[in-house]
Amino acid sequence: KVHTIACIPGDGIGVDITEAAVQVLQKLSQTLGAFEFDFTTFDWSSEKYKERGWYMPEDGLEQLKKFDAIYFGAVGWPDVPDHISLWSLILPIRKALSQYVNVRPTRILRGTESPLMKCSRSDLDWIIIRENSEGEYSGQGGTTHENTPFATATEVSIFTQPAIERIMRFAFETAKSRPRKKLTMVTKSNAQRHGMVLWDKVFYQIKEEYPDVETDKMLVDAMTVRMVLHPQSLDTIVATNLHADILSDLAAALSGSIGIAPSSNLDPTRKNPSMFEPIHGSAPDIAGKGIANPVGAFWSAAEMVRWLGYGEAADGLMECIENVTGAGIKTKDLGGFEGTKRVTDAVCAEIEKT
Amino acid sequence: KVHTIACIPGDGIGVDITEAAVQVLQKLSQTLGAFEFDFTTFDWSSEKYKERGWYMPEDGLEQLKKFDAIYFGAVGWPDVPDHISLWSLILPIRKALSQYVNVRPTRILRGTESPLMKCSRSDLDWIIIRENSEGEYSGQGGTTHENTPFATATEVSIFTQPAIERIMRFAFETAKSRPRKKLTMVTKSNAQRHGMVLWDKVFYQIKEEYPDVETDKMLVDAMTVRMVLHPQSLDTIVATNLHADILSDLAAALSGSIGIAPSSNLDPTRKNPSMFEPIHGSAPDIAGKGIANPVGAFWSAAEMVRWLGYGEAADGLMECIENVTGAGIKTKDLGGFEGTKRVTDAVCAEIEKT
Ligand SMILES: CC(C)[C@H](C(=O)O)[C@@H](O)C(=O)O
Ligand SMILES: CC(C)[C@H](C(=O)O)[C@@H](O)C(=O)O
Repeated sequence: KVHTIACIPGDGIGVDITEAAVQVLQKLSQTLGAFEFDFTTFDWSSEKYKERGWYMPEDGLEQLKKFDAIYFGAVGWPDVPDHISLWSLILPIRKALSQYVNVRPTRILRGTESPLMKCSRSDLDWIIIRENSEGEYSGQGGTTHENTPFATATEVSIFTQPAIERIMRFAFETAKSRPRKKLTMVTKSNAQRHGMVLWDKVFYQIKEEYPDVETDKMLVDAMTVRMVLHPQSLDTIVATNLHADILSDLAAALSGSIGIAPSSNLDPTRKNPSMFEPIHGSAPDIAGKGIANPVGAFWSAAEMVRWLGYGEAADGLMECIENVTGAGIKTKDLGGFEGTKRVTDAVCAEIEKT
Repeated sequence: KVHTIACIPGDGIGVDITEAAVQVLQKLSQTLGAFEFDFTTFDWSSEKYKERGWYMPEDGLEQLKKFDAIYFGAVGWPDVPDHISLWSLILPIRKALSQYVNVRPTRILRGTESPLMKCSRSDLDWIIIRENSEGEYSGQGGTTHENTPFATATEVSIFTQPAIERIMRFAFETAKSRPRKKLTMVTKSNAQRHGMVLWDKVFYQIKEEYPDVETDKMLVDAMTVRMVLHPQSLDTIVATNLHADILSDLAAALSGSIGIAPSSNLDPTRKNPSMFEPIHGSAPDIAGKGIANPVGAFWSAAEMVRWLGYGEAADGLMECIENVTGAGIKTKDLGGFEGTKRVTDAVCAEIEKT
């Protein structure tokens, strides 16, 4: 079966690691023979924006809707304000394609270690479910009295019962599917009395439907402490758009490097294509140097393969990745000495062996 | 000189550690003889709320205004919703008394260690300046269609030029007063395009006034990664109300325990009393058991002494605290075996020796 994939390398190391991921995906499909990928690359980037004045063409979202999945590198470049680049590319895709769930697993890969003294590989195995469609990323708000001494700006976070319900159900289903059946819900309802209180309330409503899932509730500030000091006490985590954004970066750091962490932007109804991207950014300082860690990109690719229906192939790819990290073939951020190409070639060689 | 101090122990271990802090403050004033404290204790707590229906009397804020400083324990108890307890006590005090700066220093005390593998005592010495009057804690927002399947709630964050200017100036002054003269500004202006973009803009404006301070800018998610992986690259940090709330808990965890971290809620104009409180909460699970770590409370007391004009006495008290932790007299959260009383007595004994 042929799957059409829209590829958006974007900016900086997004380009380096997307190339690596495509290579690995092609090797995987050729080796297994059970599926094929038909990649179409879109040159939507900050560089092109500076030339053309736009990131996506007007029918960009419509074009993307025709694909089976989207593979995304990274967006953001120093000479374009970040709020322009992100609201022109990644955020509209997440929203327009109803990718209301962002799944962010974290664990310590073979051959890598946590920067924490007391955290073995089995102590940290989390999956963060991020609300991806509203909350602090609703995009509402504005500025009054701009450029005056009393300029006043607002950011309006919107939380709705249906959107909270669907993310909670997804989180409970995820927790239920894992051995520990444990869900930690994160909020800041002590300080934020409206949206966060609704979030709490819906959590308790949906919890009734899942008597077999063990739950607890954390404030986002205290959650960072728990992640650092008691990593083994956590399993599945659900949080708002902003809180999960912060916690998933922290989670990646605690598992060794932001360079390994994947994310899946899912439309669980499957009416729209889902999008897969490493959680790291475009890293202008190391872009184009051939030293970016491609592991987060490979892991994201594995999640794409899984979403397309090939769970075993996805597990197999993860195994190959861990055989490589386990053999010490790693980039600098993981304490290794290799570049992007060497890691990519090693993963391809592992795939060939399977 | 006699200083009047309003003492609000509040809930849970707030009571345990406030008692310990008062004991230490009294020992300090008696030993040094240069100042005296006149404590008035207010029984404003969740327990009393359940009896009386209120946390503070109607003229509570007026009563507090008459004091030279406020010492606060903790507030929050399982059977009162957190947004009620906090918006009835701690948050109104911060706001009504114009305590627009919250200063949160973190370092690794003698005899304690970071949970990070690569983080020696000299690698982590931060001071977080938290905007304490607006932003995500503005309190605006509401709920429409409550208790229906389409309930919709908002949280409105307000950011104003004057409030951003004053916190930025305070942050630059703080950075300037420290040996490294380095300020890191945290924001999330890539996703939040209004208030956060204003925050960035004002930062660059105020930066002009401080050419001798080295600066950089981080996104809040990436900041957690940097705190974990490159702690030595940071010194003074300025962030919004919510971001700094999250980052300061993380900072405390990375320095060993949330139980040691102090906070100063300051009105730098000195028109109103400032308030000093450890950053930990009421910890219902260990309340009243005599095992709470009083170090955060002592450090907060030292910052109060400093704010009242006695810098040397404050440094002396910190020295006594570190002599005690350095001698291994510590509570369980710091890897020790002692209770609140033993640690308190040891600090008092150190003070007597000076
Ligand atoms: C690039 C940015 C808008 C994005 C986010 O905040 O969602 C990124 O940090 C992420 O985690 O995917
Ligand atoms: C208790 C709570 C409202 C408070 C806050 O969020 O400000 C606390 O977490 C703190 O850090 O002082």
